[in-house]
Amino acid sequence: MRDVAVIGVGITKWGELWEKSLRDIFVETALLALDDAGIDRIESMYVGCMSSGLFVGQEHIASLLADYLGQTPVPSARVETACASGGLALRLGYMEVASGMSDVVLVGGVEKMTDVNGYEATYALGSAADQEYEGYHGITFPGLYALIARAHMEKYGTTREQMALVAVKNHKNGAKNPLAQFPFEITVDSVLNSVMVADPLRILDCSPITDGAASVIICPVEMARKMKKPVIKVIGSGHATDMIALNQRKDMTWLEATYQAGRQAYDMADKRPEDIDLLEVHDCFTIAEICVIEALGMVEKGQGGKAVEDELTYIEGKIPVNPSGGLKAKGHPVGATGVAQVIEIVKQLSGDAGERQLKDPRIGMTQNMGGSGGSTVVHIFERE
Amino acid sequence: MRDVAVIGVGITKWGELWEKSLRDIFVETALLALDDAGIDRIESMYVGCMSSGLFVGQEHIASLLADYLGQTPVPSARVETACASGGLALRLGYMEVASGMSDVVLVGGVEKMTDVNGYEATYALGSAADQEYEGYHGITFPGLYALIARAHMEKYGTTREQMALVAVKNHKNGAKNPLAQFPFEITVDSVLNSVMVADPLRILDCSPITDGAASVIICPVEMARKMKKPVIKVIGSGHATDMIALNQRKDMTWLEATYQAGRQAYDMADKRPEDIDLLEVHDCFTIAEICVIEALGMVEKGQGGKAVEDELTYIEGKIPVNPSGGLKAKGHPVGATGVAQVIEIVKQLSGDAGERQLKDPRIGMTQNMGGSGGSTVVHIFERE
Repeated sequence: MRDVAVIGVGITKWGELWEKSLRDIFVETALLALDDAGIDRIESMYVGCMSSGLFVGQEHIASLLADYLGQTPVPSARVETACASGGLALRLGYMEVASGMSDVVLVGGVEKMTDVNGYEATYALGSAADQEYEGYHGITFPGLYALIARAHMEKYGTTREQMALVAVKNHKNGAKNPLAQFPFEITVDSVLNSVMVADPLRILDCSPITDGAASVIICPVEMARKMKKPVIKVIGSGHATDMIALNQRKDMTWLEATYQAGRQAYDMADKRPEDIDLLEVHDCFTIAEICVIEALGMVEKGQGGKAVEDELTYIEGKIPVNPSGGLKAKGHPVGATGVAQVIEIVKQLSGDAGERQLKDPRIGMTQNMGGSGGSTVVHIFERE
Repeated sequence: MRDVAVIGVGITKWGELWEKSLRDIFVETALLALDDAGIDRIESMYVGCMSSGLFVGQEHIASLLADYLGQTPVPSARVETACASGGLALRLGYMEVASGMSDVVLVGGVEKMTDVNGYEATYALGSAADQEYEGYHGITFPGLYALIARAHMEKYGTTREQMALVAVKNHKNGAKNPLAQFPFEITVDSVLNSVMVADPLRILDCSPITDGAASVIICPVEMARKMKKPVIKVIGSGHATDMIALNQRKDMTWLEATYQAGRQAYDMADKRPEDIDLLEVHDCFTIAEICVIEALGMVEKGQGGKAVEDELTYIEGKIPVNPSGGLKAKGHPVGATGVAQVIEIVKQLSGDAGERQLKDPRIGMTQNMGGSGGSTVVHIFERE
């Protein structure tokens, strides 16, 4: 297997993009990524997308997007594992380049979520849960994560305020990200007094509904070294599954798929949690970020809430988490999220993250999660 | 890249399986494939599925099916390129084993199509066309293929009777396949007098709506050689895209993605059309089989209709096409079709195809197509 690097990234401002269609927002970011890489042809492409069928009545987007990008007849695959579809696209693209099957591969993600009404969007997102044992009984994602939050509070003493601080931190970071959907700061008070969605989670604990896309270009590291910019290598990749229904799991507070995918990525990269300089993780709800950093071994089990209270996970802290603003502030177009995480890591490792730039990070990690943790994809990146 | 072989297959009878859910029908075939391979653990899995979202309100099936198969935490990916999703699953699984990343991979496909009404099923299938330029203007798949059929009749003199003969041949083969949805023979008269769907295509020119799944197990060829059964190698893989909207193409009668994917597979396998002993191709409509064998170079452009009239494509002919009964008689659960094609080739090359067994074939080809030809995956298999 060959070493693989990211040589181009493309992302636009996310939000409610009613004047643009799915194909438009994807192609915009793909062209930016091609420009950034300085190339105009690819050999293959992967597109992460959770549910273009339910959101815009369009499947078969792999070919549609290859066409609108002017790249037919290249092979193009749409891949899906709910909200971790973008991470999965990177993993499969990585495999194609590492194996030697192709040299230059485009990895993108897209979701157009605001063309349907709120009920329809909630139904579409709910299709990431077990419809027969969860959805058809009336529970939706805020409810599922509320169950996790209650269990975490009960078991570990995690507080309502600690969860609010995750949102406060991520909005603080997102305020420095001009492409974020909600680039402004919020306070603990505003979180605690926002509309209740599913007790104990309030609206400001939840990531938003977003239209957005993101693209990166990957190639063998030898090719990347010929370009006049920092070489950002993919040094670890992990992908794991868990039961998608919460009631099937031994411990609702523990994200086994995240643990397993993290372990695989650490092993492959020969790194440990303390080697990671920054993380972009899947904060679809505030409690999710708390559980994720525990499962990745960044803190002890049950200490995720305390970590944010102690400001360990702030940009200035020991373990910066979600400098981009995370799903919470940046937005969460589900299929695109995993690819946008990669872009933030590449920008940070390249010293190109503007106002939110960390001080000389070398190793970054992305963690992209499907549903309530039924699937997770983890990658580790290193600047040469 | 390592050589890869198919060591286990699993398929059940297809049809209107109202008493079973998507997860049930998939797991049944996956267990049969594991049994056939004589193993109980896999390292990774790929599932082809076009639209579990629109058909049963369930995305995230990669993890759901890994769970119900008792295989978590293995990585599991759902892949989609409309009706060619099953072929794509094999291609990506092949890549994973060939690259050395995994040894034992399950490749499956599934679609549960009869839990919705006819209007909803037509809408879901229509999402494989360009919704903005085709679907929203009212055309559905029988209409799109009717346009292709009319153009082929006009350009090459293909007759209504020749198209009917494709259905007659495939039902003749399907009558010998106990797992087919419609295992009985039909006549040219019954096709020509069946209900008109979209002129010139009648109901017996169309593949049916089907619930079904199919699974295979693949591994490195060295591992396959230790088993006491014929070694069936994957020797060629091709995947290509084309515009998914018919109006964008230069020539509606020419399947460019099939031509391109075929060329890739022939090149990789170092074979030519005349080396192929049998084919399973994507006869979603009778005209499709005619166009496909032309694009694969089995006959000259425009001669696909004459080929069936001359009985070249019958089981006893020079180029047997769809000995399984094809999509027409066997059924067409869209995500599963590409994997079932592989199973027929493996059975034929292993001498295990029962009443429809060809005389000692060595090399077989599958051609699996998305939409009206916007994507195609081709594989070539050889018995050692």
